Amino acid sequence: MFLSYSSLLQRRIRPTRNRYVLFSRKQISLKHRKINLQSSLTEKVRNISTGTGEPSVFCYGGASAFGVEITRRFTEGGNGVVSVDSAEGSRECTESVCFPPGATCKAQVDIAVRTLEKSGLADHRFGLMVNASLGWTTGAIMDDNLFDSVDFMHRSNVETSLVLAKLASRFLAPGGLLVFMGSAVALTPTPDMIAYSLAKAAIHQLVMDLSGEVGRALPRNSSVIGLVPVVLDTPFHRAENNGCAGEDWTPCDIIAEKLWEWSNQLPSKRPKNGSLISVTTHAVDNQHGSKEQRTLFRTIKTDNFVQTNLL
Amino acid sequence: MFLSYSSLLQRRIRPTRNRYVLFSRKQISLKHRKINLQSSLTEKVRNISTGTGEPSVFCYGGASAFGVEITRRFTEGGNGVVSVDSAEGSRECTESVCFPPGATCKAQVDIAVRTLEKSGLADHRFGLMVNASLGWTTGAIMDDNLFDSVDFMHRSNVETSLVLAKLASRFLAPGGLLVFMGSAVALTPTPDMIAYSLAKAAIHQLVMDLSGEVGRALPRNSSVIGLVPVVLDTPFHRAENNGCAGEDWTPCDIIAEKLWEWSNQLPSKRPKNGSLISVTTHAVDNQHGSKEQRTLFRTIKTDNFVQTNLL
Repeated sequence: MFLSYSSLLQRRIRPTRNRYVLFSRKQISLKHRKINLQSSLTEKVRNISTGTGEPSVFCYGGASAFGVEITRRFTEGGNGVVSVDSAEGSRECTESVCFPPGATCKAQVDIAVRTLEKSGLADHRFGLMVNASLGWTTGAIMDDNLFDSVDFMHRSNVETSLVLAKLASRFLAPGGLLVFMGSAVALTPTPDMIAYSLAKAAIHQLVMDLSGEVGRALPRNSSVIGLVPVVLDTPFHRAENNGCAGEDWTPCDIIAEKLWEWSNQLPSKRPKNGSLISVTTHAVDNQHGSKEQRTLFRTIKTDNFVQTNLL
Repeated sequence: MFLSYSSLLQRRIRPTRNRYVLFSRKQISLKHRKINLQSSLTEKVRNISTGTGEPSVFCYGGASAFGVEITRRFTEGGNGVVSVDSAEGSRECTESVCFPPGATCKAQVDIAVRTLEKSGLADHRFGLMVNASLGWTTGAIMDDNLFDSVDFMHRSNVETSLVLAKLASRFLAPGGLLVFMGSAVALTPTPDMIAYSLAKAAIHQLVMDLSGEVGRALPRNSSVIGLVPVVLDTPFHRAENNGCAGEDWTPCDIIAEKLWEWSNQLPSKRPKNGSLISVTTHAVDNQHGSKEQRTLFRTIKTDNFVQTNLL
């Protein structure tokens, strides 16, 4: 969500596989102030979806580094991906809905709904809906711009997640997977990332709250989960770190691969509804005497209402 | 913060004990568009503070039902209380700084700092600084006004807490106590209180973050804690509940009493820096065969980064 389209183009390695997709992607962009979905595209989405079965993917923040990786992995697997973002999603997207600058949460929901309806997808349901937008900033309580940072992180993390949640209540498939991005900083004291940690703590709570909506506002057998990485390896994070990735940073394609794996498993085999799942990467020695990265996904135990000492 | 001044007047039972206090309180209100603190008041604050030792109290949300109880308890004990709110604090306040409508976070900080400086309190340090504002609302993901509710809760809970935190970095005394209001709803799935639970989860994180600032942005030996009640017994909550309090609601004066107790203990005897403290009230049978309420304060164990099952 916070990367320019040009920077995404540089990351793109695979050619677009269908000219209708490309054409239609541009036509429906709200940047161009019209919603004019080709009927050929509508057919395309349906064909992909029905041809390979669920999931088809709805990606909020499809233009982000993480969103691009998700799009790549799922289109590679034959799934249609709808990107919804303030920038255009990658070329591989089946559809890219592009919000006009400054669109409120309510406007974003309305625009996404209207676009899908006009595309003949009013009754479509997505097997995977994920928020891939990754707003991040540092800042401690003494920082002059604390309040601006809090506002920015609230908008880019909490509000985007709520927009996705609202859309999921309409478009998530029974048995579908609804994924939010938390962070390890919201599980420990992080005085130097106040704004970011507060927003991520709210997202962890949102995962818990929404888990209680399965069978109510969210369809039966669906699962709401939160991914809790330490640092994702993105161009933006590298730019903030002298161009280098840390040894413990997790490449986005590893997470996209895990989402693909979960999406193709039965709901009973996937992470439990309401789970927060830590994503940690370590450099380990391999058989050839050199280092390689290994990423672990683990459920986080959150029985944090255990009461002990009387005061 | 969200009760009208008139409703607070109805709750007021004790007469103001000092005419200087009353007089000065009106003079410094920003509602009257002037900051004109009587030097007699400045002396008064200093006398109270030095006469009885720490703590003197800084109460954000001093006009709320909870703020009024805190003010009552501490002034009764001989401590000066400064109220900072969008409405005037109770008559017992030593000072009441009243924000103009719509003041941003930064403006609130600036106004509070400027007011205290003009009152000759630039170098004053408060033993207790507490956020007594209690924004609350219900609402699930399907609610039409979800985004407005999230905005309201973010402003009334998270932003007010950040304003207090910012002021604490300047005015908290070494060994002082900085108190925020969390909620039990942010420890469990509460799909019917999305906006409220997200804001309170952020406050729990803020307590953790700020605990790491003791000895840095916050003075040595100070403690940052979060109180985690179920429901507080306030006129607003009663009005939402057919005028009645629930059996498990906690009266505000019980919490004010506990804050008084902690404020008069050595830092080593108080809740540990970074603690979340559950406040639960139960109706128990007493010796006379009738029911009475009992409130327990317990530290909440928050080792929620325990990692278990590999996925």
